[in-house]
Amino acid sequence: MAATSAQFSLTIRVELPQERGSLSKVTSAITGADGAIVAVDTVEAGGNTTLRQITVECHSIDHRGRVITAVQDVRDVRVVEITDRTFELHRGGKIHTGLTVPLKTRDDLSMAYTPGVARVCSAIAENRQKAFKYTIKANTVAVVSDGTAVLGLGDIGPEAAMPVMEGKAMLFKEFADVDAFPICLNTKDPEEIIETVLRMSPTFGGINLEDISSPRCFEIEQRLVDELDIPVFHDDQHGTAIVVLAALINACRLTDRRLEDLSAVMVGAGAAGVAVAKICMEAGMTDLVACDRHGAIHAGRDDYEAGSMNAPKRWLAENTNGARRSGSPRDVLEGTDLFVGLSGPGIIDAKDLAAMNPEPFVFAMANPNPEVQPEDAAPYVRVMATGRSDYPNQINNVLAFPGVFRGALDSRATAITDSMKVAAAQGIASAVADEELDDEYIVPSVFNRGVSEAVARAVAEEAERTLEPVAD
Amino acid sequence: MAATSAQFSLTIRVELPQERGSLSKVTSAITGADGAIVAVDTVEAGGNTTLRQITVECHSIDHRGRVITAVQDVRDVRVVEITDRTFELHRGGKIHTGLTVPLKTRDDLSMAYTPGVARVCSAIAENRQKAFKYTIKANTVAVVSDGTAVLGLGDIGPEAAMPVMEGKAMLFKEFADVDAFPICLNTKDPEEIIETVLRMSPTFGGINLEDISSPRCFEIEQRLVDELDIPVFHDDQHGTAIVVLAALINACRLTDRRLEDLSAVMVGAGAAGVAVAKICMEAGMTDLVACDRHGAIHAGRDDYEAGSMNAPKRWLAENTNGARRSGSPRDVLEGTDLFVGLSGPGIIDAKDLAAMNPEPFVFAMANPNPEVQPEDAAPYVRVMATGRSDYPNQINNVLAFPGVFRGALDSRATAITDSMKVAAAQGIASAVADEELDDEYIVPSVFNRGVSEAVARAVAEEAERTLEPVAD
Repeated sequence: MAATSAQFSLTIRVELPQERGSLSKVTSAITGADGAIVAVDTVEAGGNTTLRQITVECHSIDHRGRVITAVQDVRDVRVVEITDRTFELHRGGKIHTGLTVPLKTRDDLSMAYTPGVARVCSAIAENRQKAFKYTIKANTVAVVSDGTAVLGLGDIGPEAAMPVMEGKAMLFKEFADVDAFPICLNTKDPEEIIETVLRMSPTFGGINLEDISSPRCFEIEQRLVDELDIPVFHDDQHGTAIVVLAALINACRLTDRRLEDLSAVMVGAGAAGVAVAKICMEAGMTDLVACDRHGAIHAGRDDYEAGSMNAPKRWLAENTNGARRSGSPRDVLEGTDLFVGLSGPGIIDAKDLAAMNPEPFVFAMANPNPEVQPEDAAPYVRVMATGRSDYPNQINNVLAFPGVFRGALDSRATAITDSMKVAAAQGIASAVADEELDDEYIVPSVFNRGVSEAVARAVAEEAERTLEPVAD
Repeated sequence: MAATSAQFSLTIRVELPQERGSLSKVTSAITGADGAIVAVDTVEAGGNTTLRQITVECHSIDHRGRVITAVQDVRDVRVVEITDRTFELHRGGKIHTGLTVPLKTRDDLSMAYTPGVARVCSAIAENRQKAFKYTIKANTVAVVSDGTAVLGLGDIGPEAAMPVMEGKAMLFKEFADVDAFPICLNTKDPEEIIETVLRMSPTFGGINLEDISSPRCFEIEQRLVDELDIPVFHDDQHGTAIVVLAALINACRLTDRRLEDLSAVMVGAGAAGVAVAKICMEAGMTDLVACDRHGAIHAGRDDYEAGSMNAPKRWLAENTNGARRSGSPRDVLEGTDLFVGLSGPGIIDAKDLAAMNPEPFVFAMANPNPEVQPEDAAPYVRVMATGRSDYPNQINNVLAFPGVFRGALDSRATAITDSMKVAAAQGIASAVADEELDDEYIVPSVFNRGVSEAVARAVAEEAERTLEPVAD
């Protein structure tokens, strides 16, 4: 039986006759249908009936239906209301604005708004940099998406992408006190996306690009990086890359290996794949073979020679797999120490991992189904990581992006450079203490509040060390 | 001597010797320089000295300087720190984001973000209208400006406009619980502004245009109204117009006159002027002459015939002043009941008002200096209103826009129509009770919390009465 989950939880309001045993008939019906009861509350008691509210976790939409039917079938029980807790929680949106200073009196108004505000405006008009001091630019990041590559759902459009971008904004606030605001665009044209972000950039201190499909995301990010003097960061690429590198740093630390000595195979050459390759090489890795659906990428492949590879894959062809190893992922697995999966299930079999060097690292990050199931891989693997929260070593972007922007904003960084990304990975890795480090604990918990602080510090220090300071 | 104001307040930290009378030497110096002491706090006492913090209101920047010098000149006193309270209050921006639902546990995360969020995204992908239910679109308004017509400062650019737009967002939240977010654009091209707002519209439930210079603002607003299915409202036009009409309704109520019977002269044919003319005519006014810097506008004027008038002035030429009265504002004042000033000081003299009908209404709204000073106008006028908070009857947009958007969002209105604007004015007017109504109280106080509720109710009711309902 699948595990129940809060994401499929519901609340059922039922009216019960006031007689012994009537509640237990309902709870038996729920547990009989495999529903997990989280809470039972009394809403109203009196007269001949009692109004109860029961919160139940299920494991799927279908299972939800069976639980509801089971309750409806209990004699003398009237189902008053059924609420999907996940939808309920999203009602009206998940973030709001708040006032940082009060606005209760005429004096407040005269300082925060007219006429006093005019002096602050004039000061910024004289020196645009003062916007970083006296406006929300100081702490505000746009979470920009066109809704073309949302979770596993694909191109669902800007309105449907909003719940994810709001969730992202919540994570920014909760984990790093960054004020993030979602902006979903109803254009998929890279030129128009670039233009729009450039035009609205005066408001923001940073731009987090999100869920924009590959390869458009590369051009959009690069152009914005070139044209803006605030940090621009495509989280699907660099957030993932930073956490993969953090996991790798700690896997090496655990097993006394050096990143420089590892031989690696990566499957998946989309947005995250290229970023993972780049950050690993920035951190010292030299032996890496990347595969797409046609197999290992190298500069001798037909599509490279025909000029039909997109820019990011061309980069991989030119900068990885110098030996031009070719074939499927399982063909090139032999003698490697690290497998990085950013593709989908079924790409390799668990027994293929036997061809790897002893005690290899396997990061199988396809979601929701990893390239290889941890249970199956276990006999062949020393350190296993996935993208899932129900297995050890979850590679989760939330370990990276809040702290990355916190550090960038704190240091007034004009960009998030490659070395700042490596510093972020080191920050995450450092949040696992020597005595905690273990095969099943190379990545800190998502709810470890120390992580974003460590990342912010590492990123800010690297920015201050390497970037030109900005005049005030 | 000018009145002191919180907008020019400062805090001075001084270190004083611990001896009797040392504080009073400082306070005497401040009051001797005409500074108004608001508060004296002890920050630290001990050893031979005491650290005090004194908050002082001044009446100008120059005056501030004189107060500081006076304190510096007191013997044995060391000035430790001087802070401009207005700038201090703007530091880091004046609004922030907050989480509407908690994000403390894995269960929270699984409902608000992955994997649970995917179900909400899918529901919106199937029916885009659900974004109004399950995203911040339900309650979020963009405050959009290009920074070309900010307060009295003019074209100061998007970064410098931000403190005003943040202030506006604060007012939206404080007075109507609308989540407003400032977006300042670094383009002045109407086509580009329109495009940008259209592209980012999936995020928002409404668009408040702000401080965009005339006549560009008209085209931008009209095109956005035509192309979007969410309310678009240029506050400089309609906010002002609504409050003027509210004042006029109550001036008529006070004096037993009918709007239909009034003869009016308006000076200023910019954004607000045209909107005032339109709303007054929508409410029943028929006799109106509008003037620009060349005098009374009519369809016989040279620039109308030459086709060189901009669109909004053409509208005035074609829809007002049917009698083609011509000449300067003072030439056309004779025999009118209402003067509306939206221009600048010196346009008319107080004694020109003697030519008006008995007990006229004079709304002189130029800021900071009205077309005619209330003191000078008093002998000739029954009801006087200005844009200033230090005279009775302040025409202040904040009475209108928060409630207008609250009502539009509550009723899921697809637009803010002319009749909804009139309803908003009636809502404001109704917030002054019969027994409160007085020559000096035709407009409710800015801090009367009942106003935005009355406006929201009136606007929502009118929307529900007149607009097509939106299918969910």
